[in-house]
Amino acid sequence: MDVLVTGAYGRCGTAIIDHLHDDPAYEFTYLNRSDRDEDHPYGGYDTVVADVGDFEAVRSAFEGMDAVVHLAAYPFVDGNWSDVLEPNIVGTYNVLEAARETEIESVVFGSTNHVMGMYEEEFAPDLYEPGFDLRLSHEDPVRPDSHYGTSKVFGETIGRQYVENHTYPDQFYALRICSVRHEEHDHPYGDAEAAVEEGRIERGSEAYRQEVKRMKATWNSRRDFAHLVDRCLQDDEVSFGIFNGVSDNDRRWFDIEHARELLGYAPQDNGETWDEPPA
Amino acid sequence: MDVLVTGAYGRCGTAIIDHLHDDPAYEFTYLNRSDRDEDHPYGGYDTVVADVGDFEAVRSAFEGMDAVVHLAAYPFVDGNWSDVLEPNIVGTYNVLEAARETEIESVVFGSTNHVMGMYEEEFAPDLYEPGFDLRLSHEDPVRPDSHYGTSKVFGETIGRQYVENHTYPDQFYALRICSVRHEEHDHPYGDAEAAVEEGRIERGSEAYRQEVKRMKATWNSRRDFAHLVDRCLQDDEVSFGIFNGVSDNDRRWFDIEHARELLGYAPQDNGETWDEPPA
Repeated sequence: MDVLVTGAYGRCGTAIIDHLHDDPAYEFTYLNRSDRDEDHPYGGYDTVVADVGDFEAVRSAFEGMDAVVHLAAYPFVDGNWSDVLEPNIVGTYNVLEAARETEIESVVFGSTNHVMGMYEEEFAPDLYEPGFDLRLSHEDPVRPDSHYGTSKVFGETIGRQYVENHTYPDQFYALRICSVRHEEHDHPYGDAEAAVEEGRIERGSEAYRQEVKRMKATWNSRRDFAHLVDRCLQDDEVSFGIFNGVSDNDRRWFDIEHARELLGYAPQDNGETWDEPPA
Repeated sequence: MDVLVTGAYGRCGTAIIDHLHDDPAYEFTYLNRSDRDEDHPYGGYDTVVADVGDFEAVRSAFEGMDAVVHLAAYPFVDGNWSDVLEPNIVGTYNVLEAARETEIESVVFGSTNHVMGMYEEEFAPDLYEPGFDLRLSHEDPVRPDSHYGTSKVFGETIGRQYVENHTYPDQFYALRICSVRHEEHDHPYGDAEAAVEEGRIERGSEAYRQEVKRMKATWNSRRDFAHLVDRCLQDDEVSFGIFNGVSDNDRRWFDIEHARELLGYAPQDNGETWDEPPA
C-alpha cells in the first residue's frame, strides 16, 4: 500500500515513522515543508518538500498513492485567523481536491481534541480528576475553543462532503488527536517536564501537578497513535468516521469505544500507570 | 434596536425589508455590495456599499449596532471552492471578528438546508411525498452537499467559537434557511415557475411536478422568514442555537419544534395549502 504522509516530520508524523515505517504492509512517502525537523532529525528518507498551500505540488505528490495521511497544519490554540487560513483551511481543501483528482481511496485526517475544547474549558480542572463523569463521543456537538479548533472542524466537514458527494476519496477518517508528543516527552509528565525545561513552571508546583493530571487524561502515546493510523489504513468498511486519538487512560473524557468497535483500535497505554516521569 | 443587515438586497434580506423595515422596534442599516439589486429594486434606503471580504469596511459599518443579520454570501450549490472561500469563509470570519471588536451583542447568521443536503440526496424523491419519515433537527450530524454547504457549516462553527470563547457576540443564531424566494415566486410553485420562465422545464411536466413537491416541503415564506429573524432579534435567552428556516409545511423534513420552543417561532404558512400557482 502506497501511503503519503503530509506534515511527516512533526510530532504525529514521526510517530508513524517510528512505528510503521518498517512495516512491510506500507510503502511510505513523506511530504513536509522542509526535508527534516531541525530539533528532531529524521533523516535518510526521500522527502517531497512542499507546502500544502501549493495545490499543484500536493496533486503531483499524490499521483499513484493508495492513501494519504494528512497531518500538515498550524497546530496551536493561540493562533489567529491568518495562522490557520492558509495551512489548515485552504491546505485541507487542497488535499481533498487533489485526492479527488488523483483518485485516492482513503484519507486519514489529523483533527484535534480542540474541536471539543469548550467542554474542557467548562469543566476543568474537575475534569482532570479520576471518575469525573464526562465521555465525549463522535456524536456530541462540536465546541471549538480557538481558530485552530474551528479550522479542524472545517477539515472534518469538507472530508465528509468529499466522501459523500464525490467519487474520491471513498473513505475519510477524522482523528481527534489529543496529546501526541515527541519521543522525549512521550509520557503523562511530558508537557509538565517541557514547561520546566522552558522555565515556565517549577517541578512539583501546582501548575506542574495540573499539567500531569491533564496529560494523564489526554495522552495518546506514540505507539497507540501509530496503531490507530494503521487501523484506519487497514479498514475497508468505514466511509466517514470520527475517532478520538487517545490512549486507554482512566481519566480520559474522550470515548474510544467507537474506534474499538469499528476499527479494532486496541491501545496499549494508560496514563495512570505512570507515577513519575522517566529518569 | 440598531440592526445591520449584510446582503440586504438579496432574496432573504429583502424579506426583512418587506416585513420588518417599518417595525418601530428596529432601526435598520443595510449593507450590500451595490446600492440596490438590479432585478428587484429596493430603493430609498441609506446603503453601506461594501463587500464582506473587506474587514475594515465591515468593522466600520458595525460601530454602534446592537445586532447584525449576516446574509451576504455566495448562495449556489454548484459553486466551486473559489466561489465560496472569500465571501462565505473569510467574509463570515470578518463579520464575527468585527462583531467582537465592536461589541455587537447578537449575530443572526444565514445558514442553509444544504449543510444537511446529503440527507435529501439520499432520500429524494421519496422524501418529497407526504408522510415520509424523516425529521432533521439541530442535533443531527451535518452532511453538506457542496462547497456552499461546507462553507455554511464553517459559519455555524465559527459562530459557536466566538460566542463561547470571546466576550462578543453574546448570541449567535444559525438559521438553516430552506427556500426563501423573491416576492414574485413566494409560493410552492415558485421554483417550478421560475424554471418555466427560464425555458428549463415545461409547465405540467414531471420535472415541474417534482419541483413543486420539493418546494411544498422546503418553502420558507417571506413573512415566516422575517418573523423568524424577528424572533431571534427579540430573544435574550439563547447563547448559540441552530434553527431551521422553513414554513409549517406538511412535507417538511426539517424540525421547527426547536425554534417554536426556544424562540416562539409561529409560522403562518404551509406549502400544502396551495393547489396551483397564483394567477
